[in-house]
Amino acid sequence: MKKILFSTVLALLISLSMFAQQNLDFGKAKGITSPEINADNTVTFRLNAPSARKVEVQGDWMPAKGWVPGTNKMTKGDNGVWTYTTEVLPSELYSYSFIVDSLRMSDPNNVYFIRDVASVVNVFIVGGDRGNLYKVNDVPHGTVARRWYNSPGLNMTRRLTVYTPAGYETGKEKYPVLYLLHGMGGDEEAWIALGRASQILDNLIAQGKAKPMIVVMPNGHTSNTAAPGESSKGYYKPTMEAPDVFTGDMELSFEDIIKFVESNYRVKADKADRAITGLSMGGFHSLYISSNYPNTFDYIGLFSPAIMPPQNSQSAIYQNMDGKLNEQMKNGYTLYWIGIGSTDFLYKSVADYRKKLDGMNMKYVYRESTGGHTWANWRVYLSEFVPLLFK
Amino acid sequence: MKKILFSTVLALLISLSMFAQQNLDFGKAKGITSPEINADNTVTFRLNAPSARKVEVQGDWMPAKGWVPGTNKMTKGDNGVWTYTTEVLPSELYSYSFIVDSLRMSDPNNVYFIRDVASVVNVFIVGGDRGNLYKVNDVPHGTVARRWYNSPGLNMTRRLTVYTPAGYETGKEKYPVLYLLHGMGGDEEAWIALGRASQILDNLIAQGKAKPMIVVMPNGHTSNTAAPGESSKGYYKPTMEAPDVFTGDMELSFEDIIKFVESNYRVKADKADRAITGLSMGGFHSLYISSNYPNTFDYIGLFSPAIMPPQNSQSAIYQNMDGKLNEQMKNGYTLYWIGIGSTDFLYKSVADYRKKLDGMNMKYVYRESTGGHTWANWRVYLSEFVPLLFK
Repeated sequence: MKKILFSTVLALLISLSMFAQQNLDFGKAKGITSPEINADNTVTFRLNAPSARKVEVQGDWMPAKGWVPGTNKMTKGDNGVWTYTTEVLPSELYSYSFIVDSLRMSDPNNVYFIRDVASVVNVFIVGGDRGNLYKVNDVPHGTVARRWYNSPGLNMTRRLTVYTPAGYETGKEKYPVLYLLHGMGGDEEAWIALGRASQILDNLIAQGKAKPMIVVMPNGHTSNTAAPGESSKGYYKPTMEAPDVFTGDMELSFEDIIKFVESNYRVKADKADRAITGLSMGGFHSLYISSNYPNTFDYIGLFSPAIMPPQNSQSAIYQNMDGKLNEQMKNGYTLYWIGIGSTDFLYKSVADYRKKLDGMNMKYVYRESTGGHTWANWRVYLSEFVPLLFK
Repeated sequence: MKKILFSTVLALLISLSMFAQQNLDFGKAKGITSPEINADNTVTFRLNAPSARKVEVQGDWMPAKGWVPGTNKMTKGDNGVWTYTTEVLPSELYSYSFIVDSLRMSDPNNVYFIRDVASVVNVFIVGGDRGNLYKVNDVPHGTVARRWYNSPGLNMTRRLTVYTPAGYETGKEKYPVLYLLHGMGGDEEAWIALGRASQILDNLIAQGKAKPMIVVMPNGHTSNTAAPGESSKGYYKPTMEAPDVFTGDMELSFEDIIKFVESNYRVKADKADRAITGLSMGGFHSLYISSNYPNTFDYIGLFSPAIMPPQNSQSAIYQNMDGKLNEQMKNGYTLYWIGIGSTDFLYKSVADYRKKLDGMNMKYVYRESTGGHTWANWRVYLSEFVPLLFK
């Protein structure tokens, strides 16, 4: 074979990338690292923007004003690189953006970002404590699959995400199933992305704190077949508004998901091995699905649930709730878990729902955290809920 | 149940998102759509940046200068929104960024973006022709799974991506397997993201143009266990440089991947039902794997391959190549497919390799396209290669 100078072509390949990236990305000066997690868990941000007049970092570790995350001004160095170092941050997964002369932008030196409905934010993890549960660690990893299932109830083929624990494919054991539901505007990617569900499950199972289980993450918006960009709707601008919200369609068609899972996976298909939980709208779904499917779930979780019986909905799902909850109580369950942040805007409605449950002597475990309607809380709730399942 | 005003809470939930997004994202003015694919396949970009002095769009449909994609100036309107409309664009998947006062940034109104090594770019698809193959269409969809396999050869557990065609899980049929390899700096996400492999396979299979097959996308950098952010290395800044490049480790340990696939999936485990191809470094891998594993692959593809026998490598993989190619020829194969763009910087080395094959009378199919070392070409090559397999 004719010998070509290996090192020459290798250098070409590398310079091709370097050159392209350097020129494509004016914010990416040589040697810049951003964010840098320092040894003391302060975090330094850097942006090369010599001609900018004002640069801020906006992130969810700073006190928010209303719903708007706080900001801090960055300082321009002689080299045109703006920097800012935080105080010591508690172990957590954080999100942030830069604001350059009033324009929000991603950090060009950080390729890790997550879409939340229509917003895209950079992320980083401060380890040491809680954040370790959200990291990929050297433990056995489950499989994450995006699959399509048939929903006769909706007359659609729909996409869902399934986590199967390490060892599922090579063993013969049957597994319990957790159905994990997202909030309004979300989709079958939400719990995997901002929720870190596969990392939390991998880590809790490896630590012996959770039983190996299958986790099924469907799409709770029945007017969609899949997440934005993953269906024949193509690339469109996602919004929170959906015509399907609280129509009862999700709850009514949920049996299609259970049937699909139980005929396609090696599962223990009984009440003692089914759990359902969700955040916000997904908490609402969990409440109504668990009460409308009698004797189906032994474990129910409501994470910052939106509890609101729609007054105008004609759906049978929302009728005769007192009777349904009484039947659910009579049939029995192992765990009814409610979590809410003390500053969540849904706090009052959850308190009212608890009073109702107290009044009918329906038992539940109540977890009140600090904070509001945030993914930080939902990751904590998942981390606490999962170890209680299938024991 | 105590009735809470449904419409009130729903409005709260929606405004929560609207408010948060509006304030988080200064570039996202109400009603802005960007990019907008117009009826005539021109494309309009918009950015709300009232205080910017100069805004450009940089994209891969414009003539590049060297490796740098071309740019076009956007025009500021009275409302502070900058716009630019392209000429009519051929059907294709395109990538772009904005450059605002010399700083590259993503389009805040487009949540569709792809990471390529260390660069993040927005994407859009112009349909009508080739681009339709890259879209999610209303056809049966395969499953895409991220799994971990054991590699005794590397003493590692490693991540790979597996596409199984629609019907795989519910049928009993055995399937042929295509091993699909990425280029330098890439990983097991590359072909799924910029390569649109699952859409191309779904669409070609639905059109009857390709046989249903399993597609296995491993990680070709043996110093990594997984893509950036997906291993215990955590979040780091990806680079093109890797100590493992052309060491022979990937080729030597490839049998671990084949063994994993053939013992974990319902596959036809014979030469006639195995294909291997890859782009750039992955083309190099395909050349050496197919010639070092005698009688293993009936279908070999080299997409813009980096063909360079390392002069310094001690690996047995790169020794006695004439003998190995002669044996491969003697053993026989169905297809040896080489694709290269006429302006690819590797054109000359591929021409030299073809001369070598001609000289030894080793048959191959040659496909010369326009353009260079680009994903646009690799998607085309995959779309043309896959229909030739397993017939």
